[in-house]
Amino acid sequence: MRLVTYIDGAIERVGAVRDDLVIDLSDMAPDMLTLIAAGPALLAAAQQRVEAAQRGTPLDQVRLLAPIPRPRQNIICLGMNYAAHAIESLRAKGLPEKLPEHPVFFTKSVSAVNHPGADIPMLSEVSAKRDWEAELAFIIGRPTRNVAREDAMRSVFGYTIFNDVSARDLQMQHQQFFFSKSLEGAAPMGPWIVTADEIPDPHALRIQMRLNGTTMQDSSTHDMIFDIPTVITTLSRGMELGPGDIIATGTPEGVGMGRTPPVWLQAGDLIEVEISGIGVLRNRMVG
Amino acid sequence: MRLVTYIDGAIERVGAVRDDLVIDLSDMAPDMLTLIAAGPALLAAAQQRVEAAQRGTPLDQVRLLAPIPRPRQNIICLGMNYAAHAIESLRAKGLPEKLPEHPVFFTKSVSAVNHPGADIPMLSEVSAKRDWEAELAFIIGRPTRNVAREDAMRSVFGYTIFNDVSARDLQMQHQQFFFSKSLEGAAPMGPWIVTADEIPDPHALRIQMRLNGTTMQDSSTHDMIFDIPTVITTLSRGMELGPGDIIATGTPEGVGMGRTPPVWLQAGDLIEVEISGIGVLRNRMVG
Repeated sequence: MRLVTYIDGAIERVGAVRDDLVIDLSDMAPDMLTLIAAGPALLAAAQQRVEAAQRGTPLDQVRLLAPIPRPRQNIICLGMNYAAHAIESLRAKGLPEKLPEHPVFFTKSVSAVNHPGADIPMLSEVSAKRDWEAELAFIIGRPTRNVAREDAMRSVFGYTIFNDVSARDLQMQHQQFFFSKSLEGAAPMGPWIVTADEIPDPHALRIQMRLNGTTMQDSSTHDMIFDIPTVITTLSRGMELGPGDIIATGTPEGVGMGRTPPVWLQAGDLIEVEISGIGVLRNRMVG
Repeated sequence: MRLVTYIDGAIERVGAVRDDLVIDLSDMAPDMLTLIAAGPALLAAAQQRVEAAQRGTPLDQVRLLAPIPRPRQNIICLGMNYAAHAIESLRAKGLPEKLPEHPVFFTKSVSAVNHPGADIPMLSEVSAKRDWEAELAFIIGRPTRNVAREDAMRSVFGYTIFNDVSARDLQMQHQQFFFSKSLEGAAPMGPWIVTADEIPDPHALRIQMRLNGTTMQDSSTHDMIFDIPTVITTLSRGMELGPGDIIATGTPEGVGMGRTPPVWLQAGDLIEVEISGIGVLRNRMVG
């Protein structure tokens, strides 16, 4: 299923997209976090509803929100999780070109969550070096603590597209990544969560980013340094992951910072992140 | 007021401590986040109630929880915000002894929140280098965006004591601080929020940490490199802070990592963090 949070008639609802229709599921769960936490029985019932539905609302008549508009906690992100991107980043920062031996985890603020199709404020008064990062994000589906590697994928509820919009000048100044990654609107995600059953291998997805139609990133999720089971087992050894937690798996090479000369986002720029099997996440820089 | 979240008769309540009594406020607000977000009128009404109360529950008959047991987003923390601590940290890590020119922000997971008097799991299977960090935390009281320095303190609802329990080996391995700071139980706070009216100068508080009764940290919040107005104005230029957001202002010198030889927390250790005008936060390492 392609699960969405959407606005229809000024009311926020949870639903599923089938073809070009949205099937309302909000009588089954008031929001996406509840639907995820409810577990497989409700999900199966939702699937039956969606398959049997005779009608729905045309997709172009609703406004999609981030599938999880108000996460329970910050979005966990991986830094430098694709080798070629790690090298381009370290080179751009003048640091030794050494790949991480352990996953690099930071977070983006809940307040930065942004929606498919929504504008991303430039905030030129705060940063002159805004950059994109196309990423596959996965959503945890159940309480997960100390999970074995072979069981880790059972904790994945589904996948979505994520753009880890960054402010490179702030990233250098403030050392730790949190603030430079948490500016207003800097965490667009969507357009939907594709449930895990529809993505048999999340490490074989093509991931692309286009800037005003020009391809800037084009890689495969196969190239992650630390794959999803490694990420889950590493985190779950020390902390409990819970239903609805969002983990973004890092970006491949081709960000603006890594180019000669560097390319920074400008007002009016259209950013499209596309991942095979999921869809396209579009946002425009404004302001 | 000293505002608490507490368990009385298996029910979680919000209240205020006067002398050794807890005055129930849960008919005015179901939880601390609601009380904070409600604004000054409800707070004034609560104050009247507390002053006029003829009776309450003895403090030793309730169980205190973290004043905000389920923050809306991760706890924002400052790293290296006291000069002597920044130097001891950089020296211990073999890095150049250079003070930060901009605040260093990272976050601790919501799932790490822990309570006054509660145990902190050792998690020896994950880390052999657990350390303490006594910190003053402040709580944001209202939506705050692009605030001027002279108005910044108006956004502070109150203060609490925070222990930024850390895993130094993971902190080195994973580069960014998030995971090493977010282990289960690694974010104890409390015992209460002291409202801002009772702390006329948060930069003149004595802050101490005792390990099994021996003083390990003893400094003044006057020594912060980046003071609270600077922290608020810096963050609020790029992101909106909201009621209930928790910001921990960094630790002074005297952590275990900075000692020769280093001192790591052991099972059974009692950690007491004391801040003048607020109280004492006690936790024990177990497991």
